[in-house]
Amino acid sequence: MIATLKRFLIGRPLKSEGLAEEKLSKFKALAILSSDAVSSVAYGTEQILLVLMTVGYTALRYSIPISIAVLGLLTILILSYRQTIFAYPTGGGAYIVAKENLGVRVGLLAGGSLLVDYILTVAVSISAGTDAITSAFPQLHDHRVLIAIGMIAFLTIMNLRGLTESASILAYPVYLFIILIFVLIASGLYKYAAGGAPITPTTHHMEISGISLFILLRAFSSGCSALTGVEAVSNAIPNFKAPAEKNAAMTLMMMGLILGSLFMGISFLAYAYGIAPKPEETVVSQIAASTFGRGLMYYAIQASTALILFLAANTAYAAFPLLAYMMAKDKYMPRMFTVRGDRLGFSNGIIVLGVLSAILIIIFKGHTEGLIPLYALGVFIPFTLSQAGMMRRWLKMRPKGWAISFLINTMGMLTTLTICLIFLITKFSQVWMIFLFLPVVIYGFIRIHRHYQDIAKEMRIDAKSDIPMTKGNVIVIPVAGVNRVVLNTISYAKSISNNIIAVYVAFDDDDADKMEKKWEEWNSGVRLVVLKSRYRSILKPLIKFIDTVEWKTAETDYVTVMIPQFITKHWWHNFLHNQSSLLIRAYLFNRKDVTISTIPYHLKH
Amino acid sequence: MIATLKRFLIGRPLKSEGLAEEKLSKFKALAILSSDAVSSVAYGTEQILLVLMTVGYTALRYSIPISIAVLGLLTILILSYRQTIFAYPTGGGAYIVAKENLGVRVGLLAGGSLLVDYILTVAVSISAGTDAITSAFPQLHDHRVLIAIGMIAFLTIMNLRGLTESASILAYPVYLFIILIFVLIASGLYKYAAGGAPITPTTHHMEISGISLFILLRAFSSGCSALTGVEAVSNAIPNFKAPAEKNAAMTLMMMGLILGSLFMGISFLAYAYGIAPKPEETVVSQIAASTFGRGLMYYAIQASTALILFLAANTAYAAFPLLAYMMAKDKYMPRMFTVRGDRLGFSNGIIVLGVLSAILIIIFKGHTEGLIPLYALGVFIPFTLSQAGMMRRWLKMRPKGWAISFLINTMGMLTTLTICLIFLITKFSQVWMIFLFLPVVIYGFIRIHRHYQDIAKEMRIDAKSDIPMTKGNVIVIPVAGVNRVVLNTISYAKSISNNIIAVYVAFDDDDADKMEKKWEEWNSGVRLVVLKSRYRSILKPLIKFIDTVEWKTAETDYVTVMIPQFITKHWWHNFLHNQSSLLIRAYLFNRKDVTISTIPYHLKH
Repeated sequence: MIATLKRFLIGRPLKSEGLAEEKLSKFKALAILSSDAVSSVAYGTEQILLVLMTVGYTALRYSIPISIAVLGLLTILILSYRQTIFAYPTGGGAYIVAKENLGVRVGLLAGGSLLVDYILTVAVSISAGTDAITSAFPQLHDHRVLIAIGMIAFLTIMNLRGLTESASILAYPVYLFIILIFVLIASGLYKYAAGGAPITPTTHHMEISGISLFILLRAFSSGCSALTGVEAVSNAIPNFKAPAEKNAAMTLMMMGLILGSLFMGISFLAYAYGIAPKPEETVVSQIAASTFGRGLMYYAIQASTALILFLAANTAYAAFPLLAYMMAKDKYMPRMFTVRGDRLGFSNGIIVLGVLSAILIIIFKGHTEGLIPLYALGVFIPFTLSQAGMMRRWLKMRPKGWAISFLINTMGMLTTLTICLIFLITKFSQVWMIFLFLPVVIYGFIRIHRHYQDIAKEMRIDAKSDIPMTKGNVIVIPVAGVNRVVLNTISYAKSISNNIIAVYVAFDDDDADKMEKKWEEWNSGVRLVVLKSRYRSILKPLIKFIDTVEWKTAETDYVTVMIPQFITKHWWHNFLHNQSSLLIRAYLFNRKDVTISTIPYHLKH
Repeated sequence: MIATLKRFLIGRPLKSEGLAEEKLSKFKALAILSSDAVSSVAYGTEQILLVLMTVGYTALRYSIPISIAVLGLLTILILSYRQTIFAYPTGGGAYIVAKENLGVRVGLLAGGSLLVDYILTVAVSISAGTDAITSAFPQLHDHRVLIAIGMIAFLTIMNLRGLTESASILAYPVYLFIILIFVLIASGLYKYAAGGAPITPTTHHMEISGISLFILLRAFSSGCSALTGVEAVSNAIPNFKAPAEKNAAMTLMMMGLILGSLFMGISFLAYAYGIAPKPEETVVSQIAASTFGRGLMYYAIQASTALILFLAANTAYAAFPLLAYMMAKDKYMPRMFTVRGDRLGFSNGIIVLGVLSAILIIIFKGHTEGLIPLYALGVFIPFTLSQAGMMRRWLKMRPKGWAISFLINTMGMLTTLTICLIFLITKFSQVWMIFLFLPVVIYGFIRIHRHYQDIAKEMRIDAKSDIPMTKGNVIVIPVAGVNRVVLNTISYAKSISNNIIAVYVAFDDDDADKMEKKWEEWNSGVRLVVLKSRYRSILKPLIKFIDTVEWKTAETDYVTVMIPQFITKHWWHNFLHNQSSLLIRAYLFNRKDVTISTIPYHLKH
């Protein structure tokens, strides 16, 4: 039944040979990998305006130079990651780049922050998308956690079905959003040029008091939240159709171009219309309403904004399992993340991401907005490490024209490092827990690695000297009476060894005598030992007995406990039989160095 | 850790010899077995007045003859159950009496209604008690389900600790309630006799319209809810100290006397004070307030009323596990109900009762008052059957003076049967589900019985002809590589049989070649079969292979699958290793007739 449900949700298993078919075309990759970055258009400008507004309405004019600075940073990041793509064609996320150039521990720091960040991406984006839905339909407000969990379940299942299928479903809304925002910007600019803008820009010559470098930098760092998600492409190169590097680089450039123009367009219109951030209405919503009025186009823009926020979460579904796979292959994460599921995706990574982000949403009751600074910082740490790694690489390898490449990465590194520091200084109360969390995660990676190394050493055998050695075998059979299951088990035991002891646990003397008499009558040729249990426990006397047998014979013999086991015809029949054999098995399994054989007897009734 | 928690909650295990010590003295038995019956004083009179009030205030004067009728019924029931105690000294609940005299199916009907009823007792009493608490502390009202579940958990743990200890803790509140109500009645009567009653009784000569036999009978049947719990003593005879029958009979008489006087006292005072039922205040509360004013005594009475309602639930904790034990011994219920726990109580019965009543409370969100008629009917069905059984018994055995005994039981039977019919006619909408539920339960009993009989037949062996027969043994070992765990398993297998096949599941040709080469180099003396899995499933090719082996050799050989199994040093290390061996085991265990041996390798790291 579970198998059927799984088949229905996930689809039939695919052959391993199908792996090549599952590669992404540029058109689909752009949609699946850029929705995170592009969706930040929905809040990037607003983040800048919110900080400037703390000084006053007239300070809003600084949004244009700040937006240009963000655009500059975007250009640097895109150029930098383009270099990474060609340097690391097998997938060069911050983890790989930092590990190879700056050492394993720095790599783990980058990998750890990215993994945590992908979980935050899902939680934050899904919450924001749910907010958009519940703003439109207030009667759904009480069910926001349920809606968010439902969306996560939907994304998880879609990703378990396989990348290509997800992309087909999810590509259209991304392109719809891009087109709608472009139309909005074009119409807005036309209206502005034609002089029809509803509000004229504020005069440029008013005096502003209280503006400082600190505020400007803070506004700049807030605006940098628009750049989260830029790294997605360089992590996912192996998912691209051949030639993977070229396609990935093209996708990255396209994404940068789209993101840059949408972001600048929105920032300019906000400035041109003189829009100030309001708690009850987003900046994009204000621009759309001013341009088109609250008609069909307005609602289409709002709806596609909500939709792309859900799709932003989907980016993490592409990135998290791949990074987990790479770290698991390096033995820093559990081996299960290397296993491909029925549909060739790394199912365990997909499921773990879904479960952890759902837990975050439940803990924060759907209000994860407070996590945004943490989330942005979690992106800029690996940005910085990745670029520092590239700097080191240029210095080491010095290919032709390395100086320019080095300069690009140095500029990028310094900028992102500065942004990290600004985050720390201006938003410490919201990001301090990263200092608690990252060391724990990295310590975990290192412990996992050590465990795998120890095990590998312990498991290694020498093909010459380590050959199988045989010993004798003592068999202990716990019996509950004289019946067919016991007969069945003893028959099996006799075909293996002649050294068999049947053990019966009696609760009183009467019981013991009866059993001894019955056994004698039967004459199975097997010795019976009757143990007495004054506390009505079967397990304890049995364990004690096995200990004694082990102590006496372990040098010369293997000790095998054979457990006669009813297999009932219907699962609910299990309630009708004592499950002592399961208990015995579970106990012995974990604590004792004995072999446990289960001898099944399939009941006919 | 779980073991320590269990030890803390339940106490250390007791020896089986300790069973005799756990018997109840009369003093404790009266408290533990009568709290259900005595607690009905809290609502018995009120139930009568509520029905009469539907006709009018003046109809309330009929409460006195109706109360006398209930008292008469109580006398009949007490006398009848006294006869049962001596006739069935090993515990003669309705189940035993009906089964022995009226056949198994009637016995199951009685047993089934009693079991259901005990669950309802717990749910209804706990809800009512919680209401009393939340009426006093309205700020707790939102937590009523939690409080009720907490009380059930408390009762369950107390009962798991053992009967005597429970009784010591619980006896005092019962006696406190009895004493307080006696003091209330005595003071009330004195006040009335002295002419100080606040309200004078209504005149006896007013004309009443609309009163009918139907209403009177309905009021009578409602008043009979005061008699629930009377059967508890006769079910629990084996729990009494020797001489059990005499002590049980004495306890029953004492209980009848106390219940009868308290009930009549409250009914008379209600009549004498001219009290009418109010939705916002109970009759007992009104009487207490009129007699003492709202002072210390009033609150003491209210508090002990709440407390005894919780203790009423405890009666079911004594009765349910014992009845379940008796039915399980007759093989109509799962065997687990016959097992005595660490503290010698029937732990499974106690736990099942706790869980089911907690579920009822959760489903009804703590408002189980609507279940009261169902609960009362559930008591009167076994009352009727038990007395019908006794009638049959007198007719069969005809001891000296049987005619009077027969007459007592006949009167009782006719009365309780009438009450059942009145319940059905006047409260059908609240009790109809019993016609759905009881047949299902009884069908379940019969199916369980048939299963146990079939199994017993299947298990039976002939001591002469059924002796162990040996066969050969083919051993299949799934291996994941060449390592120490595999070496360990092959060493064991070689000491059992020479017919060993190692099986490796490869995901691609490269993998297969590598493994074959490694195996050859090792030269363990065991044949390796490499299976290819195009869908990356280890289980499916393996199962198919085992099927083939089984099909070829099952006639001449046992097929044994030996599973090499890491045992990790820390439980969380399990996340770091694929759990394929558990999957393989779980699959084979349920579906295949092969022996499964787990060969443990305890990891040092």
